[in-house]
Amino acid sequence: MKIAVVTSNPHKAAEIVAFFGPAFQLDHVSIEIPEYRHDDVGEIARKKAEHAFGIVKRPLLVDDTAFSVDALKGFPGPYAAYVLATIGNEGILKLLEGIPNRKAHFETAVAYATADGVEVFRGRIDGIIVQPRGTGGFGYDPIFETNGVTLSEISLAEKNRISHRSQALTMVKKWLESRD
Amino acid sequence: MKIAVVTSNPHKAAEIVAFFGPAFQLDHVSIEIPEYRHDDVGEIARKKAEHAFGIVKRPLLVDDTAFSVDALKGFPGPYAAYVLATIGNEGILKLLEGIPNRKAHFETAVAYATADGVEVFRGRIDGIIVQPRGTGGFGYDPIFETNGVTLSEISLAEKNRISHRSQALTMVKKWLESRD
Repeated sequence: MKIAVVTSNPHKAAEIVAFFGPAFQLDHVSIEIPEYRHDDVGEIARKKAEHAFGIVKRPLLVDDTAFSVDALKGFPGPYAAYVLATIGNEGILKLLEGIPNRKAHFETAVAYATADGVEVFRGRIDGIIVQPRGTGGFGYDPIFETNGVTLSEISLAEKNRISHRSQALTMVKKWLESRD
Repeated sequence: MKIAVVTSNPHKAAEIVAFFGPAFQLDHVSIEIPEYRHDDVGEIARKKAEHAFGIVKRPLLVDDTAFSVDALKGFPGPYAAYVLATIGNEGILKLLEGIPNRKAHFETAVAYATADGVEVFRGRIDGIIVQPRGTGGFGYDPIFETNGVTLSEISLAEKNRISHRSQALTMVKKWLESRD
């Protein structure tokens, strides 16, 4: 049976389908899912998956991502997209002015739902907040440095090798393969 | 039939019950409701009401509040509680350093649900962001000035006369009375 990749973002769907490759049958399903508020991405992904399964009624994947700055008590957390669209990277940098602790991390949870229930897989990448560098990527990538480079300074292939989302997707893929 | 005041906050429930007075029969129902993300409080209140009605199955009231700063593109918006718990009033003030436009507003939507559907009532209060003053109230009250005073500098009675939530509740009350 085909696995539905549930997201309203066709670009993300295409990336996930490409990530799994031809050994898996995936298709993109775009439905509106309530964006549950919770401070844990795993719980948000689980609730999104349960809601989506009630509509789609076949195996599916859905994800949720948070971006957390330690000195800001985890802000913007699960509201990364909203915060980016309002105060943006400029706002994050302003909030951190004069604050020595620059630690931050991205975390993604991918939930796989079937009639048997929901499995949640997580990926995480740690780094520090810096002045913007690089032209690649999107969102917080220019101000997030890991291993000496920002996520905007590395190739897409390299980003896909180390990113929070690809870590979680790798675990999903291995888990699915182990069940074949 | 009694009207259920659906909230996990017993203090808010008690305030709403007191607001309506003895002419109305209200009781507090505490259930977990998904905290839908949306940039309009009216839509969030409506979705919360529809979800709650599926569980409570009798007339109910539920509310949602946003706090929006114009120069921050509406931030923190519906995420007022989360932003307060992370970057707080200090963060809002830091984000506005050097920015002349201090305009902000609170907006509350109260949704009333019955088997016939959902009615949404709104209240709004406009003001400006200032350095904290006053000891009353809570949340953003000390940095929100309207008519020359912050919401922390006025009495609870006065706050209840002008507040966004009491405006919306007044409309609900009049609407319910008009249907008797």
